[in-house]
Amino acid sequence: MRLLQLFWGFLLVAGVCSALVSTPSSSSSLGAEVRAEFPVLAQEIAPGKPLIYLDSGATSQKPQCVLDALHEYYVRDNANVHRGAHTLATRATEAFEEARGKVARFVGGEAREIVWTRGATEAVNLVAHGWGDAHLEEGDEIVLTVAEHHANLVPWQLLASRKRLRLKYARLDAAQGAIDADHLASLVTRRTRVVAMVHVSNVLGSEAPVAEAVRVARERGAPDCVVLLDACQSVPHKGVDVRDLGVDFLVASGHKMCGPTGIGFLWGKYDRLEAMQPWQGGGEMIDRVTLDGTTYAAPPARFEAGTPAIAQAVALGTACDFLSGVGMDRIAAYERRLARRLDAGLRAVPGVRVYGPSADDRDVALVAFNARNVHASDLAFFLDQEGVATRAGHHCCQPLHHALDADAGTVRASLALYNTPDEIDAFLAHLRGVLDFFADLPTPADPKPAFHAA
Amino acid sequence: MRLLQLFWGFLLVAGVCSALVSTPSSSSSLGAEVRAEFPVLAQEIAPGKPLIYLDSGATSQKPQCVLDALHEYYVRDNANVHRGAHTLATRATEAFEEARGKVARFVGGEAREIVWTRGATEAVNLVAHGWGDAHLEEGDEIVLTVAEHHANLVPWQLLASRKRLRLKYARLDAAQGAIDADHLASLVTRRTRVVAMVHVSNVLGSEAPVAEAVRVARERGAPDCVVLLDACQSVPHKGVDVRDLGVDFLVASGHKMCGPTGIGFLWGKYDRLEAMQPWQGGGEMIDRVTLDGTTYAAPPARFEAGTPAIAQAVALGTACDFLSGVGMDRIAAYERRLARRLDAGLRAVPGVRVYGPSADDRDVALVAFNARNVHASDLAFFLDQEGVATRAGHHCCQPLHHALDADAGTVRASLALYNTPDEIDAFLAHLRGVLDFFADLPTPADPKPAFHAA
Repeated sequence: MRLLQLFWGFLLVAGVCSALVSTPSSSSSLGAEVRAEFPVLAQEIAPGKPLIYLDSGATSQKPQCVLDALHEYYVRDNANVHRGAHTLATRATEAFEEARGKVARFVGGEAREIVWTRGATEAVNLVAHGWGDAHLEEGDEIVLTVAEHHANLVPWQLLASRKRLRLKYARLDAAQGAIDADHLASLVTRRTRVVAMVHVSNVLGSEAPVAEAVRVARERGAPDCVVLLDACQSVPHKGVDVRDLGVDFLVASGHKMCGPTGIGFLWGKYDRLEAMQPWQGGGEMIDRVTLDGTTYAAPPARFEAGTPAIAQAVALGTACDFLSGVGMDRIAAYERRLARRLDAGLRAVPGVRVYGPSADDRDVALVAFNARNVHASDLAFFLDQEGVATRAGHHCCQPLHHALDADAGTVRASLALYNTPDEIDAFLAHLRGVLDFFADLPTPADPKPAFHAA
Repeated sequence: MRLLQLFWGFLLVAGVCSALVSTPSSSSSLGAEVRAEFPVLAQEIAPGKPLIYLDSGATSQKPQCVLDALHEYYVRDNANVHRGAHTLATRATEAFEEARGKVARFVGGEAREIVWTRGATEAVNLVAHGWGDAHLEEGDEIVLTVAEHHANLVPWQLLASRKRLRLKYARLDAAQGAIDADHLASLVTRRTRVVAMVHVSNVLGSEAPVAEAVRVARERGAPDCVVLLDACQSVPHKGVDVRDLGVDFLVASGHKMCGPTGIGFLWGKYDRLEAMQPWQGGGEMIDRVTLDGTTYAAPPARFEAGTPAIAQAVALGTACDFLSGVGMDRIAAYERRLARRLDAGLRAVPGVRVYGPSADDRDVALVAFNARNVHASDLAFFLDQEGVATRAGHHCCQPLHHALDADAGTVRASLALYNTPDEIDAFLAHLRGVLDFFADLPTPADPKPAFHAA
């Protein structure tokens, strides 16, 4: 009720502010160049309020070529894969497997090392079951970090509960901008069988000490200690090469990298995949089935029970083509500039607290923040009235928010290659407008009559 | 090599046959009425060879309204669901949850009883883990049938292996047309904790004795014995109501019911879902996450870890609208006529063996068959040259094929509402043409020079 009252009051003020805030316009930037490819961006949230989409950390928008790939699959090739002897089935299978190769090349792996999943979450669960249940034993240790997304936390908690394992969490550094690499290293022992961590934090925007984690896992961990990287927030924004990283497993979500919803992947070193037990049972993943027992296919098929998300896999291949076509180095350099403009701009707003590393250490244009005296949800709500799409809450990182002393949540602005510097400026102007509005509000102890309940 | 030789020989013959086989044309049928809605059907596999798609048992084609729903979601609403405070996130969440209600109504359940999965396979795995691992104990029994798709077989085998359970399989009746209801009933004991069966067999085309299975499960099974129905081949073709059926769980795949790939669902009685433990961990399925442990959301969210297949769920809702709009009773009556025409036509072809019930007992237009002296794969290959898409193999039912003495596989023609009687006639004519060609071939012992290897 109070929010509704605030809302109407805000509408009056916003009308004035809008006139002062420049509408995002194209300028000579990568964002301005590619955004025409993203039809969803060309809309107004309300008359005169063009969409400023700053929620790519939750899901990215899709370029026209990805939408076309979906459409063309359905109107030309749609058939079930691998099991058909007809033309459509052959075409669908070829497109599906070709996409596997595209995704593999996008992260520097081989096609046979890519397992399709619904997203990164299912991919982590697959490793927790397929590797964890097969190999880990009571008393073994899994090293995680406090910055993990629930997707890279809860599957390990469930595994730990099934197998009586010990979970250890690397803490944040003193500045709370990134994972403390020394602390992480100190946690790894001969009982450490898994190190699982987020590549780029979806709240801090900082990069995890992957090289250090891989080194200590090899040097000090159990002989078969595996390292899993949650690359959801890195693969859309910078070039990622699994061989350079030296990890054993990498997971990502297609919908966060310009692909459709409902598809993602696990990359795993082939010998690691071969050592994993089946998880989901069904068609495609079997070799021979009898009533007495079943033998299983080799990876990746072993882990792809049932009809896969065929159209989505094909279109994720197209998304990789799109990103590669723009150029991951170019995207990374551009987004780094966006990141610094966003970070510096937010820090310059009175009463705003920015989480994560300093502006110079930001590679990814994703910043979580709070404003004094305004709840994150209210802030996101009022920004939305101006056409600005941000996200408020824990961003699936409750433990990290607890570590940051931000249990009530944060607002997150997360950008992608299609955002422009002008959009950042417009967002910041709208943010100042919203905060000015809240600053002028009566405190609950001294309400003005206009805001009394009817 | 031999197949290639046969192929070139066949092309010569096919040219003559094609002139004798009428091209499928529209006639006053439901199929003729609705097929314009399915753009993929309006193609030729080769010049003068219009596609005759008889592989809907593997995957159905998609009507324009489903393609439009996908497109509109991506160009208007695309955002992550449940966690966002902005306009697109609100729209996406509303569309996503509205679709859950549509699917629920389509099968006679409540929205909160629908869990989104990738397809029926994942749904069975979810029950095997969420119910089976939570409640079943060593020595408990699971009753299945020999007609199960691997999706409803392998997850139970894996569960049985984890928990040392006993699997029992109902056999086929004497005519091998359907499951032997008496045998099924005889298998159920006080140790029976799960009865899982296919509603309509994807090979036989016959309906399982569901009412009998539910009755004996309640009367003779363990007090909490649950019945799971694999409804993949029933929900696209006839009205299905979970309350009338009296089962505890029902699973289906969206891509087989005019929906997109990558989406399906588990329907479960709510108290059964509440009694299931979490399976996949991640975002969305949690209540509160700390480093020490996690509490879980109520169903259905408890079983939907990670970003769901949002666009696909929305479009599956549209597919349900489409099917309901045509009318499930009308579809069922129409497909029954197609089934009988197909069955009778196949039985009239010399040398063809049809599996499954007699024509009068066929409700679903799906017939598996073999032809004397021609391998199923060869037959499907040559039919494809005529534009006819059938499927050859085990159709993910190796044990059933073994029971049918058809270990080498069968050819399956499976139809949907968009097929026409004319297509059946054209298929039968092409089949006769292919068989005539094979009949004229020299035996391997007496090869004609034209087919010698070069």
